[in-house]
Amino acid sequence: MSNDKKLVEAITSMEEDFAQWYTDVVKKAELIDYSSVRGCMILRPAGYAIWEKIQQELDRRFKETGVENVYMPMFIPESLLQKEKDHVEGFAPEVAWVTQGGLEPLQERLVVRPTSETLFCDLYANIVQSYRDLPKLYNQWCSVVRWEKTTRPFLRTTEFLWQEGHTAHATAEEAEERTQQMLNVYADFCEEMLAIPVIKGRKTEKEKFAGAEATYTIETLMHDGKALQSGTSHNFGDGFAKAFDIKYTDKNNKLQYAHQTSWGMTTRIIGAIIMVHGDDSGLVLPPRIAPTQVMIVPIMQKKEGVLEKAFALKEQLSNSFSVKVDDSDKNPGWKFSEQEMRGIPVRVEIGPKDIEANQCVVVRRDTREKLVISLDELQERLGEILETMQKDMLDRAVAHREEHTNIAKNYEEFKTIAKDKPGFIKAMWCGEEACELKIKEDTTVTSRCMPFEQEKLSDTCVCCGKPAKAMVYWGKAY
Amino acid sequence: MSNDKKLVEAITSMEEDFAQWYTDVVKKAELIDYSSVRGCMILRPAGYAIWEKIQQELDRRFKETGVENVYMPMFIPESLLQKEKDHVEGFAPEVAWVTQGGLEPLQERLVVRPTSETLFCDLYANIVQSYRDLPKLYNQWCSVVRWEKTTRPFLRTTEFLWQEGHTAHATAEEAEERTQQMLNVYADFCEEMLAIPVIKGRKTEKEKFAGAEATYTIETLMHDGKALQSGTSHNFGDGFAKAFDIKYTDKNNKLQYAHQTSWGMTTRIIGAIIMVHGDDSGLVLPPRIAPTQVMIVPIMQKKEGVLEKAFALKEQLSNSFSVKVDDSDKNPGWKFSEQEMRGIPVRVEIGPKDIEANQCVVVRRDTREKLVISLDELQERLGEILETMQKDMLDRAVAHREEHTNIAKNYEEFKTIAKDKPGFIKAMWCGEEACELKIKEDTTVTSRCMPFEQEKLSDTCVCCGKPAKAMVYWGKAY
Repeated sequence: MSNDKKLVEAITSMEEDFAQWYTDVVKKAELIDYSSVRGCMILRPAGYAIWEKIQQELDRRFKETGVENVYMPMFIPESLLQKEKDHVEGFAPEVAWVTQGGLEPLQERLVVRPTSETLFCDLYANIVQSYRDLPKLYNQWCSVVRWEKTTRPFLRTTEFLWQEGHTAHATAEEAEERTQQMLNVYADFCEEMLAIPVIKGRKTEKEKFAGAEATYTIETLMHDGKALQSGTSHNFGDGFAKAFDIKYTDKNNKLQYAHQTSWGMTTRIIGAIIMVHGDDSGLVLPPRIAPTQVMIVPIMQKKEGVLEKAFALKEQLSNSFSVKVDDSDKNPGWKFSEQEMRGIPVRVEIGPKDIEANQCVVVRRDTREKLVISLDELQERLGEILETMQKDMLDRAVAHREEHTNIAKNYEEFKTIAKDKPGFIKAMWCGEEACELKIKEDTTVTSRCMPFEQEKLSDTCVCCGKPAKAMVYWGKAY
Repeated sequence: MSNDKKLVEAITSMEEDFAQWYTDVVKKAELIDYSSVRGCMILRPAGYAIWEKIQQELDRRFKETGVENVYMPMFIPESLLQKEKDHVEGFAPEVAWVTQGGLEPLQERLVVRPTSETLFCDLYANIVQSYRDLPKLYNQWCSVVRWEKTTRPFLRTTEFLWQEGHTAHATAEEAEERTQQMLNVYADFCEEMLAIPVIKGRKTEKEKFAGAEATYTIETLMHDGKALQSGTSHNFGDGFAKAFDIKYTDKNNKLQYAHQTSWGMTTRIIGAIIMVHGDDSGLVLPPRIAPTQVMIVPIMQKKEGVLEKAFALKEQLSNSFSVKVDDSDKNPGWKFSEQEMRGIPVRVEIGPKDIEANQCVVVRRDTREKLVISLDELQERLGEILETMQKDMLDRAVAHREEHTNIAKNYEEFKTIAKDKPGFIKAMWCGEEACELKIKEDTTVTSRCMPFEQEKLSDTCVCCGKPAKAMVYWGKAY
């Protein structure tokens, strides 16, 4: 058991140093490795497999709403990026520039895409002529680059993977409907698949996307009480359409500008899975998103019949679950620790005595609950256990968020909570950027969103005391 | 029918101008669009959907052999690219250079990956220590950039999509076995899914990959008699391992260098599908790779019950096939032309009279054969028709290749065939690069591969007359 202990001891505990715990988990669970390129990470098989599951599930949900996938170039000519004023101001300071191709300097510099609004607009201007061509509901899966000064695995990296949906519609109403629809796709996905509850709301003017009329967001709360922006959906109105001249002839033969949206979710969401569900033994993956759901660990695997039985079980269970057998030449304790570190939801232990008794030991990753289960009932019971675990994980995350959400009715309360109680703060706001800036200056807290579910906590802004316009979720954010 | 005619007439015929026909098809079938970025193309939904089908199927086949997916950074530091001498010489002249990040010039220039051997080697040097860590069987799906002077949709573009597999093994034998295994995966995929027959063989020293010990290739023949390199698999021996110091401790506790392979297939293969199977009405997709297999075209769709019946049929058939209904407000002739242009394998026409007679008209895209089929038998018959079509398409492609493969026993014959008979030329070769260069100079023909299935056509090199070492497939290539 000495190896086993060593592995577990090598992780910093969450309470001691949450940031170090996070870094330990992403490395030890072999989700990522650092690369020779500043700020870029390598997604190793265990990390990429989670992204593949996320992709499959989101892609299916997108396509159910009529979305089609495309692929756009990774380069954007400087002149194209500059077409929409707010947009270029938002992104130009943090992009990578290609200045030479082959042996020749380029006539015009190219940006490595930080996001692809400009390219999609350029395409839509070419292919949209009539109301018959609308809506266009395109999405792409790709990587984007933003030249970040400080980086952190999954949360903020120079290059990251994402999907970016870009749609064009005949009317403002349709664009608004699509913006909200996609936010709901993200919210449902997080709750149903990742067991992560979300706050849906609208970003303030200060926090919205460069070039958008409105940005909607889902905000999630991590174990340490910090917030994570986990998915956004933007309504552009006809601003980009005017900058890029995206016009169509309507049914009355009149020229109209199109209305557009965009929406994205990134590998950052893997950081949320880690920081919402993880514990001091490592990762804990919600069963529905776990690439491997069941790890069978043979006990005394050199005894006759043990490995055979383990692989026979795997064969049988693979109809319903994604199952692996750890038949490496490590000792069982070490294997247990590895399975726990990797967050595999359920472990099945089976040895000679279990085989004799026609049973096995099943251990849940989240609660460590141990169950002795007859092999005849294993398939059915595992299904129940995984479903229960998925539900319990969501319930615990909801409870954690409730416990870490506080109401501030005046600025003294606000500052005390910001200092002493990690988590969301609900408080009223006048709508002025000045108050957001002051709050950030005083407490490092920022506005996360104006939730769709508004409450009237008081009549006045928590900061300046002027009449309040909205309730805001505030928090320290990743 | 006037619209219909116009659409078809707008394509250049294959016989008249094959290159123009190709460009017309990729545009009119809406597979691609040109972008504002020189040499980069936009993969539109119809084009990207084909790539998604290719990805799904290849990915499944890779994973069956134990391959795991990862994601590596898109940038490579200049110093890393330079570690393997042949490799950097092969790629440095045709890469894109990032020289500025954010507002600052970079200390070290970055290359946008043209291929990722150097990054995988860097990773393997870090994570491979013991024989227990081997083999590593990693693959990634991504885009790469090569600064091409002249470009052509799918066939040669500045940025293209591909997969690149990179493996590390304990022994030379295992690496060689993997190199051949993956070539066979490509070959089987092309024949079984794309109905494209391949010649498997080894590249000459002149044509092999920069840094490889051996490059294996699958070569396919297009309708115009030109060859297309359609997938390659490289054995690196321990050359990269020595340059990057990838060493492991073997079972006897001795340090050994790893042996490596890499293998790739790209969006170029979509060009092969177009040029092997297409005709003067547009694309013809093999049923197994077609994103939409059946297009239902309602006739007199405004008559009561027609659209309902069409959608009921779709519902029923969707259990077995991928089916769409074209209920747009275009006339049927126009819809037929569009379905043909897009290469959808089967069209089902159904109108009021058909419904009355409980039947429909089924039209095969490849042969234009029209069949009247009872609705009760439709599901079963469609399955047979699609399977037959898949088989017939492969048979025709094999026959076309046989008809366009000629044997040259001496140089006069070789030159005459090269001039008059488009297609592969089989001829003996002495093994000297000088003869490859002379042949290319005289005829523009290049060596495609030394096929695994060798024949002894004569004792002497077709070019210089010295003793022959191998039979080579020669051809003009894309």
